[in-house]
Amino acid sequence: MARPAKRNASSPKSGEDRLIAEHFEPIARHPGAFGLTDDAAVFTPPKGHGLVVTADAVVAGVHFFADDPPEAVAKKALRVNLSDLAAKGARPAGFLLTLALPKSCGDDWLRAFARGLGADARTFDCPLLGGDTVYTPGPVTISITAFGTVPRGVMLRRAGARAGDRVIVTGTIGDAALGLRLRKESGAARQWKLSAAMRRHLLTRYLVPKPRNALAEVLRRHASAAMDISDGLAGDLGKLCRVSGVAAEIETARVPLSKAARAVLVADRSAIETILTGGDDFEVVATIPPRKLNSFVAAAKRAGVKVTEIGRITTGSSARFFGPDKRQFRFARASFSHF
Amino acid sequence: MARPAKRNASSPKSGEDRLIAEHFEPIARHPGAFGLTDDAAVFTPPKGHGLVVTADAVVAGVHFFADDPPEAVAKKALRVNLSDLAAKGARPAGFLLTLALPKSCGDDWLRAFARGLGADARTFDCPLLGGDTVYTPGPVTISITAFGTVPRGVMLRRAGARAGDRVIVTGTIGDAALGLRLRKESGAARQWKLSAAMRRHLLTRYLVPKPRNALAEVLRRHASAAMDISDGLAGDLGKLCRVSGVAAEIETARVPLSKAARAVLVADRSAIETILTGGDDFEVVATIPPRKLNSFVAAAKRAGVKVTEIGRITTGSSARFFGPDKRQFRFARASFSHF
Repeated sequence: MARPAKRNASSPKSGEDRLIAEHFEPIARHPGAFGLTDDAAVFTPPKGHGLVVTADAVVAGVHFFADDPPEAVAKKALRVNLSDLAAKGARPAGFLLTLALPKSCGDDWLRAFARGLGADARTFDCPLLGGDTVYTPGPVTISITAFGTVPRGVMLRRAGARAGDRVIVTGTIGDAALGLRLRKESGAARQWKLSAAMRRHLLTRYLVPKPRNALAEVLRRHASAAMDISDGLAGDLGKLCRVSGVAAEIETARVPLSKAARAVLVADRSAIETILTGGDDFEVVATIPPRKLNSFVAAAKRAGVKVTEIGRITTGSSARFFGPDKRQFRFARASFSHF
Repeated sequence: MARPAKRNASSPKSGEDRLIAEHFEPIARHPGAFGLTDDAAVFTPPKGHGLVVTADAVVAGVHFFADDPPEAVAKKALRVNLSDLAAKGARPAGFLLTLALPKSCGDDWLRAFARGLGADARTFDCPLLGGDTVYTPGPVTISITAFGTVPRGVMLRRAGARAGDRVIVTGTIGDAALGLRLRKESGAARQWKLSAAMRRHLLTRYLVPKPRNALAEVLRRHASAAMDISDGLAGDLGKLCRVSGVAAEIETARVPLSKAARAVLVADRSAIETILTGGDDFEVVATIPPRKLNSFVAAAKRAGVKVTEIGRITTGSSARFFGPDKRQFRFARASFSHF
C-alpha cells in the first residue's frame, strides 16, 4: 500500500492514497503496519511461537450479495479467515486486506466497510497490517490473508484423526445454507412457514458468520484433528477423513440444529441435504480422543462455546451419515463448489 | 485451500479441489504448506529474524491484458510482490495465492499459469504456501501475499532519508510505461520508429518485471530509505520524501534509460513524462548516506545490479526534477492511480 500523509504539489495524493488514508489508516494500529505508509509491514511472532497463515477471498454476487450492508461484507470477509485460525488452534495476530473495487463503490460504501472491518479487528484483536487497493471492472472482491500464532509452531491439522476418536461440532449446523435459500428462493420462505425471528436467525447466520476463536486454545489442547466448515459438514468432514486416512460414522439425529432449522425440517424433510452439505457454517468440526472428551467438553463450556458429539472415527476412508433407521444418507453432492 | 488426496464416493472431489491438486500442489514444496491439504500453512521465521509481509493484486484488463500469456501473468503477479520485498531488504520466504477465476479460464490457461508461477517460485526461492481459489463473474484477479525475512525484524523503510543522502535507482526507468503505450497506442509505435529489438525490449519490460531481489541485502546494509517504483519514479519518490520529511532534487538527465527509451525521446520529447510518471518499473529507488556510497556501488556491482545516482536529498518536502537548463519539470500527474 502506498499512502502519503498529506497533499504535495509535485506529487498530489492519488485516489488510492486518499482512499487508504481516509478509511483504512485509522484501523491499522499495529506498530508494524507503520500507519500504512510503507510498502510492507513487519511482524515478528512471540518467542517460541510459529505463524499460521491462511487466505480466503469473497466476491460480490458469489459469496455475498452486492447489496448486503458493507459492514456485514467486511465482517464476513475477515471472519471466514478468523474461522480458519480458530480451527487451527491459532490466536489471531493480524491481517492483510486486498480490495478490488469497481468505480461504483463510493465513499459511503467504503466508510461503512471500514467501520465494520475496524469493529471486528478490535473484537478479535486482529489488527490490519497492510494490503492493496486496486480497481476492477468486475465485482467487489475482497482477499484477506490472516496471521495467527501457535506455540512451538505446532498447528492443529486436518490430518491426525484416529479410529476411536469422537467427532464434535461447534454451534449449530445448516443455518447459513438455509438462510441463503431464504434469500434466493421466494418459495422456500412460504413453504417453511417460519416465524419472523426464525427467518431473521437464518438470514443473519448467512450474512455474518460467528467464528469460534474463543475455542482455539481448547481445540489445540484436546483435538487430534480439526477444520472449519465452509463447504458443508458432509464434504468437509470427508476431506478431514481423507487427509487423516480414516472414516467417520455420524448419527445425523445428533447434528445440532437451531430452532429455525428444526422448523424447516418439519415443513420440508429434504432440507436435511441443504443443512449437511450447503456450507457457509463457519463452525468447527474436530476429532477428540476419548480420554480427552470430558476435559474438552468442560473446557468448551468454560470458553462459552456449545459443542456436540455427533459420531465417531473408524477405520476406512469416508464420512458416512446415518439416519435413525441406521440407513446411510446419500447426498446429491456432499460439498459445495463454485467450479 | 481444501484439496483432498483422492476421490471418495461419499464426498467426491470438487472442481476447486481438483484444480488445486492438479495445478498447484506440485509447486507447494515448503513443508509448512502440507501439500495444500490443510486450511492454513505454518511458517516460522529463522531465529533472530522478523517477518516482512506485503500484498499486491493484479486484475485482467487493468494490470495486465486478458490475452497475455498465462506464464507471464503468473510471473508478473508474483514479481510485483517480490519487488516490494527487495526494496524492503527482505529475503523471500514464501507466498499465498488467491485466485479469482471466471469460468472461461480452462485447464490450459491454468496449467500454463501454474508453470510460470512454479518457475518463479524456484528462481526466487519463494515457495507457494497456500491460498484460495474462488469463482468470479468478473475478470481474472490474482492477489498474492508474500513473506520475507529480515534479521532482527528491522525492515528497510520509506522513512529514513536525510538531507545530504544520494538518490539512486536500479536498472533503467520508464521502459514498462513505454511498453504499455506501445500496446495501447498504434500511433506511438509509428511515431517512435523503433527497431524490432527495441519494441520487444519495451514490451517485455511491461509484460514481466525484473524485481531486484539480488540487491535486497546490499540495500539493507547501505540505504537509509527505499521503495520499489510501481506508480512512477516521480510520484513514488515524492511519497518516500513525504514519509521521510525531506525533499529530493533529481537531475533528469542522469535518470538511467534503455537504448529503446532514448530512441523514443529522440522521436518524441514529451515521452519524458511517461518515463518519469508512468509506472510499472519495479525498479528500486533508494537513498544512500554519502559515506556509504562507494561501498554501496561496489556491493551492487558484485550483486550484478546496475545502480545509478540521480540526485540528492535536501531539506523541504517534495521530489523535484530538473532539466539540463536547471528548470523544474512540471508533471500533469506525478503518479499513476486507477482511482
